Amino acid sequence: MFQSFKDIADPSKGGPRVARLRKELKSRNLAAFLVPHADEHQNEYVPPNAERLSWLTGFTGSAGIAIVGTGSAALFVDGRYTLQAPGQVDTRVFDILQIPRSKPTDWLKETLKKGEALGYDPRLHTIKAIERMQKAADDAGLRIIPQDENLIDAIWKGRPAPPRAPVTLHPLKYSGEPAAKKIARIHKQLMKAKVGAVILTLPESIAWLLNIRGRDVPHTPLPLCFAIIPAKGKPELFIEPKKLSANVRRTLARDVKLRKPEDLSSALTALGNTNSKVQLDPDTASQWFEDQLKGALTEIVHGADPCIALKAKKNKIEIAGTRAAHKRDGVAMCRFLAWLDANAPSGKLDEIGAAKKLEAFRRQTGALKEISFDTISGAGANGAIVHYRVSESTNATLKPGTLYLVDSGAQYLDGTTDITRTIAIGEPTKNMRRHFTLVLKGHIGVGAARFPKDTRGVDLDPLARAPLWDAGLDFDHGTGHGVGSYLSVHEGPQSISKRGMVALEPGMIISNEPGYYRKGDYGIRIENLVLVTPARKVKGGERPMMSMETLTLAPIDRRLIDASLLTRNELKWLNAYHARVLKEIGPELKGKDKAWLEQATEPLEAT
Amino acid sequence: MFQSFKDIADPSKGGPRVARLRKELKSRNLAAFLVPHADEHQNEYVPPNAERLSWLTGFTGSAGIAIVGTGSAALFVDGRYTLQAPGQVDTRVFDILQIPRSKPTDWLKETLKKGEALGYDPRLHTIKAIERMQKAADDAGLRIIPQDENLIDAIWKGRPAPPRAPVTLHPLKYSGEPAAKKIARIHKQLMKAKVGAVILTLPESIAWLLNIRGRDVPHTPLPLCFAIIPAKGKPELFIEPKKLSANVRRTLARDVKLRKPEDLSSALTALGNTNSKVQLDPDTASQWFEDQLKGALTEIVHGADPCIALKAKKNKIEIAGTRAAHKRDGVAMCRFLAWLDANAPSGKLDEIGAAKKLEAFRRQTGALKEISFDTISGAGANGAIVHYRVSESTNATLKPGTLYLVDSGAQYLDGTTDITRTIAIGEPTKNMRRHFTLVLKGHIGVGAARFPKDTRGVDLDPLARAPLWDAGLDFDHGTGHGVGSYLSVHEGPQSISKRGMVALEPGMIISNEPGYYRKGDYGIRIENLVLVTPARKVKGGERPMMSMETLTLAPIDRRLIDASLLTRNELKWLNAYHARVLKEIGPELKGKDKAWLEQATEPLEAT
Repeated sequence: MFQSFKDIADPSKGGPRVARLRKELKSRNLAAFLVPHADEHQNEYVPPNAERLSWLTGFTGSAGIAIVGTGSAALFVDGRYTLQAPGQVDTRVFDILQIPRSKPTDWLKETLKKGEALGYDPRLHTIKAIERMQKAADDAGLRIIPQDENLIDAIWKGRPAPPRAPVTLHPLKYSGEPAAKKIARIHKQLMKAKVGAVILTLPESIAWLLNIRGRDVPHTPLPLCFAIIPAKGKPELFIEPKKLSANVRRTLARDVKLRKPEDLSSALTALGNTNSKVQLDPDTASQWFEDQLKGALTEIVHGADPCIALKAKKNKIEIAGTRAAHKRDGVAMCRFLAWLDANAPSGKLDEIGAAKKLEAFRRQTGALKEISFDTISGAGANGAIVHYRVSESTNATLKPGTLYLVDSGAQYLDGTTDITRTIAIGEPTKNMRRHFTLVLKGHIGVGAARFPKDTRGVDLDPLARAPLWDAGLDFDHGTGHGVGSYLSVHEGPQSISKRGMVALEPGMIISNEPGYYRKGDYGIRIENLVLVTPARKVKGGERPMMSMETLTLAPIDRRLIDASLLTRNELKWLNAYHARVLKEIGPELKGKDKAWLEQATEPLEAT
Repeated sequence: MFQSFKDIADPSKGGPRVARLRKELKSRNLAAFLVPHADEHQNEYVPPNAERLSWLTGFTGSAGIAIVGTGSAALFVDGRYTLQAPGQVDTRVFDILQIPRSKPTDWLKETLKKGEALGYDPRLHTIKAIERMQKAADDAGLRIIPQDENLIDAIWKGRPAPPRAPVTLHPLKYSGEPAAKKIARIHKQLMKAKVGAVILTLPESIAWLLNIRGRDVPHTPLPLCFAIIPAKGKPELFIEPKKLSANVRRTLARDVKLRKPEDLSSALTALGNTNSKVQLDPDTASQWFEDQLKGALTEIVHGADPCIALKAKKNKIEIAGTRAAHKRDGVAMCRFLAWLDANAPSGKLDEIGAAKKLEAFRRQTGALKEISFDTISGAGANGAIVHYRVSESTNATLKPGTLYLVDSGAQYLDGTTDITRTIAIGEPTKNMRRHFTLVLKGHIGVGAARFPKDTRGVDLDPLARAPLWDAGLDFDHGTGHGVGSYLSVHEGPQSISKRGMVALEPGMIISNEPGYYRKGDYGIRIENLVLVTPARKVKGGERPMMSMETLTLAPIDRRLIDASLLTRNELKWLNAYHARVLKEIGPELKGKDKAWLEQATEPLEAT
């Protein structure tokens, strides 16, 4: 299994560990220290040696920050984790506060006295984050002081070693473009902007640029590393040599200079003396890089990591790959859904059993490298918890008369998948069907959309919500996130959300996942990945338009659809989608699975 | 008439005037001078003495900027005016360039040499605009130098005197809130923000705050003036005393200190010595204010003019007023539309005649104070010019088989209106009906929308476009702008557009005006004003929602609607709207007008 269902909450260690941390504060004359859930790359999934926040507090959520002062301590989490955190954390030691209602900067202003010092590890905070923190500190008369050594590392006995998983080459048949060509594209950008070099701190950017993958963090095939890309000549790649086989080293050496991670600091110093502009991404690079370059001859230019925008637009080979990956994943999903329909009526299936079975079907494809995130397997009320993680203690059975929500994905060499289906277990209520159909209308609103050049995610987000708004309902997450090509399941710069200000362009992959959540009762989400494409011309059309090619191939539960709520065009979209699923997946299935798919994709009739 | 149809283009004067301006450049050692279409208040409509751009170039558009260098000169206009400008301007003297494709800053970089000086009048450019200009100048090694005297004023013989129209009091029965209470609300905001004073440079803000109106510019009832609002105590109002009758003076003096415009500079100097924060709006205040305060003891804080947000949310009295104004205006519009239908078949009506007739019907209400902008009266192909201004030379007849677009509005004491109707003259083509119905679908998408708290205009804009997008069409303007209460017909901060990042709130008035333009053929726009209101609760609704109350009351041309393209809900909305128009306007009409309204509002049946 790529997923653990263990209960990992252990609040008992927080007290003694905070006590030890306070000794460190004292010895360094600090009034508080920041402990974020972050590694040096701002990865979504961090390696075990960077799990400082959970080591200190017990909290295992994917986002959060603790501040430990000499007399009090607080853990800041967002709305997703306000239920989970108190179960994992000793609340006598940590106040648990909700972001953004409570702000770390406000806590610092209230807790620390003028002139006192706040310590932080400059490798774990972005330039932008420290800029905000510095402003708040200035307002409150506090000092904020970078620490050479992370205070947690100083007291963490048995801290795991940094990961050293082998790096693999991501061959041209998947990447579609040689590293040399990608590097040339960056060179061109840098020359045009008159920038001497750009520093890359995101492993996913470097993995894309150099066509390499790794296994240093869970779920995302990342090799942890840094890179400096000069405007001319070979990039320098800072990576642990032990991760590289002779073959990988040889291949990489054609395009880059291989250097050890410990050389990074001196390389930055050398770069600082070049008297040219150096570009850093203030939203993703850590303050440590800014500190290394500050005061040097070079001028620091803030700008987005150039790989982010390039990587988002998939090339033809990547597009062919993602289509193949989605077809393969669709077969596994269909077999899982057929199995679910056959076995759920027993009332004996549970969330863990279902998640295991789904992973087993994906393994049977013979191509599964990882799951792209911990499967969200939520029965009944658990489905209403948007970021639900099933564990042994929460594991619920799938009972007739409830809904089951399963959000999962796979990492294949040719593509990354992410799909959510909501399934009726037994007979659904009228309300369940109504809510499901409203979510489906929103899903179709995005999936069937045609839109002109310069349309941004923010311009499509309302199409996913309007049917729910009309019924006095809404959902509290974005409609879609970008998805990588055998890389991060969440990638920018595009998103379909209130903050999605980046124009959508052909080649971008994005999720389409509106939902509805009825606390204590059920959750509904319908998620397909879609590919932005130039649209087929329609009669009388005057402007070139874009549209969405749906990549994900698995039936949407017909038993939950009230066709009377659909317009003719919505019904047409749904039936065409199901016909396509049958056509593409049907030939890959046999026997009962095939029969199941045939009935699951039967056209719905207008009422 | 509140509108002139004269041909005002006279390109012949540009040459000699530019020659005189170049002498001024030389005598001041300047390489170029900026001539924007702007007055000291950044008004949309400027008084005659501020029409420097049209005096110099001949160009009469509502936006644009000229740069005159020693050897060459350029006029920058946006896409609305690329056809109009060359007809009004001597193109041997001015290069006409389109913003944003061409940028004044780029022109300066290309035209001026390093070290040369660009002059500008600091009273006519916002702080933000000069900030951008300064940055470009720094990049190019140019100097930019504020000029005490505007160079145009120095050479403009017979320049009109500043306007001195009498100020009127805007009574409580229209404003709904005494000036003292509004001032108290600003006081509270300033105290909370620890700001010592805010400077108001927008006459519409001051008019709203002090419940006064004026007649200093066309169409908008503005009294030109400035104000300083301290966090405590009486605001200072800088206004020409000759504009104030004894009664107005007495009433105003209860709430403000009346001061002469020429005292403003010394008042700012005094303010600069108060050692407190002074707030300036960098998007609306001119650089001159920043210059007056810079280097003084006081700290300048940049922040939005606080009246803008307060003014946008109409109170109960203003809402009752706008409803009355729209009913009154609806009667005039219905009589006009009935007249049009009766007379258009003759094929003898023309654009000017129609515009005059419409104004006449509005005058007959006995309440018309002004039209809120020059009526756009566009027959056939002229309707496709979004900001068309009919003049004697362009005046077209309304021919059978064409569309006629009329966008107009009125200023009444109780409210400002703005309405566009597109009317079939004779038999419309199938395409006209299809395009009109697609625009109508978008109009209903916004007009019938329900949406949650924090929804911004940007989130509604796509609802107006999706039906057009689906057909491969779109329109190149925003969907809606805010509207004042017997004030500006275009006001912020809200808008329904790609840039509408301000949350909509109950009490805001906004236009809903999607369109479609077929160059050389016809234009379609359907515009109602709507009021944001809390929404009626629907069964099963869980969240409080907002919706739109349509204020405008006039039939939408049924002959142009293809009901087969409407959904059941869209048809329901349309029929309910027409039933309401009949119910509210019908009793005010007689004879033929009433009969016309009855047939114009008959329910459409589903096909």
